[in-house]
Amino acid sequence: MPRYRLVVEYDGTPFNGWQHQRNGSSVQEALETALARFLGESVRVQCAGRTDTGVHASHQVVHFDAARDWRTDVLRDATNAHLRPHPVAVVAAEEAADGFNARISAIRRHYLYRILNRRSPPALDRNRVWHVPWRLDAGLMGEAARMLVGRHDFTTFRASECQANSPVRTLERLDVEREGDEIRVYAAARSFLHSQVRSLVGTLAQAGGGRWSVADVRAALDARDRSRCGPLAPPEGLTLVGVDYEGQAASF
Amino acid sequence: MPRYRLVVEYDGTPFNGWQHQRNGSSVQEALETALARFLGESVRVQCAGRTDTGVHASHQVVHFDAARDWRTDVLRDATNAHLRPHPVAVVAAEEAADGFNARISAIRRHYLYRILNRRSPPALDRNRVWHVPWRLDAGLMGEAARMLVGRHDFTTFRASECQANSPVRTLERLDVEREGDEIRVYAAARSFLHSQVRSLVGTLAQAGGGRWSVADVRAALDARDRSRCGPLAPPEGLTLVGVDYEGQAASF
Repeated sequence: MPRYRLVVEYDGTPFNGWQHQRNGSSVQEALETALARFLGESVRVQCAGRTDTGVHASHQVVHFDAARDWRTDVLRDATNAHLRPHPVAVVAAEEAADGFNARISAIRRHYLYRILNRRSPPALDRNRVWHVPWRLDAGLMGEAARMLVGRHDFTTFRASECQANSPVRTLERLDVEREGDEIRVYAAARSFLHSQVRSLVGTLAQAGGGRWSVADVRAALDARDRSRCGPLAPPEGLTLVGVDYEGQAASF
Repeated sequence: MPRYRLVVEYDGTPFNGWQHQRNGSSVQEALETALARFLGESVRVQCAGRTDTGVHASHQVVHFDAARDWRTDVLRDATNAHLRPHPVAVVAAEEAADGFNARISAIRRHYLYRILNRRSPPALDRNRVWHVPWRLDAGLMGEAARMLVGRHDFTTFRASECQANSPVRTLERLDVEREGDEIRVYAAARSFLHSQVRSLVGTLAQAGGGRWSVADVRAALDARDRSRCGPLAPPEGLTLVGVDYEGQAASF
């Protein structure tokens, strides 16, 4: 049974997240429906990183098993034709190596969080950025971010419904860059806890707005207490931008 | 009577262009309605560059006269509140210098045209890019573009409904850059003819796709014949990104 690996891009706005939901539509459902129409069989796809309602992906990776062999360019183009009018696109399709699993084989996930930091609301980037109308100091946010990098118990920055066995994660990257009115937060780790990036960004924004000191952020981390987290940053600013596998690392 | 100058950003997708239309809504109408609600009087705004249906602006400039003085930060924020839910935002507001006219005083307009050059359709940048699924050679497009820069009779690259007195324009910049799957065309001139940028990009795409040689593009220019233009590039890839005035030049 051949296994295929797809790179998928989607606008999370109209979906109730990646995963099948009891109500509302999911990206997974849109993709599985399009694949079933083309393949003539129902398949189950597994993704590298489940995204919440409203969160986007420019580079989600999934795998699935098909009953027969397909040309990967035909698979990509036909699936895209069946995906319309959903804002979901298969960017690349290839045969997966033996033993490949989109979730288990992944060694690193990359997220980008975009903040529009100006008085005026977004017109062109609506649903793509978090609009913060008060001034944020990206330098202070970067200082707090550097302190969060490394291996920590991230209980403070973990959704209460998180099902991971351990709250310990190694945050490999948390960079803050300002470009004009936009602040970009780049985060990378082998794996993240549920809502970890949005929890971290919400807390960094507290430091950037001068409400918290860098020491307050440190104390929140050390407290290992969810109630000490800053307000969760909204989903629309977050995009899954890359997934690394052995021998296939993206650079951001 | 004080005159105000606004920088305006908008998503052109839901509008029938900048200008008042007999049917369908215009950006101008949305802005004038919001201003009237706040100012308590009806005003007429004049813009630096009228955009067609579906064309965007990250930096449109307009002016209008008000019956009384307003604090410019209040003007900006209140207008934005009244603009909701339209995808239009006042990014900056200031009092205009004596004799300022958004259209007449402008000395340069800057446009960006974005092409998504890959097999798969856009999911995140839908309505923001022209999707060209066949391979374009940005080097060839750049070569043809350099030949178009300068003072020329642009009759070939002018919509039949263009009302300008002369088809002669000085194209100051026409640069082509590839970044991954995206090709960006930057255009700047004191003024453009109707549909000139979309006509130029459509023709550059013919050269990039290998259908036309650079010499064919040259011959089309020299022919001064609208029927020799390449297919018009669609509006969704085009954004007005800047307007220069004496002493206030943007850099792109």
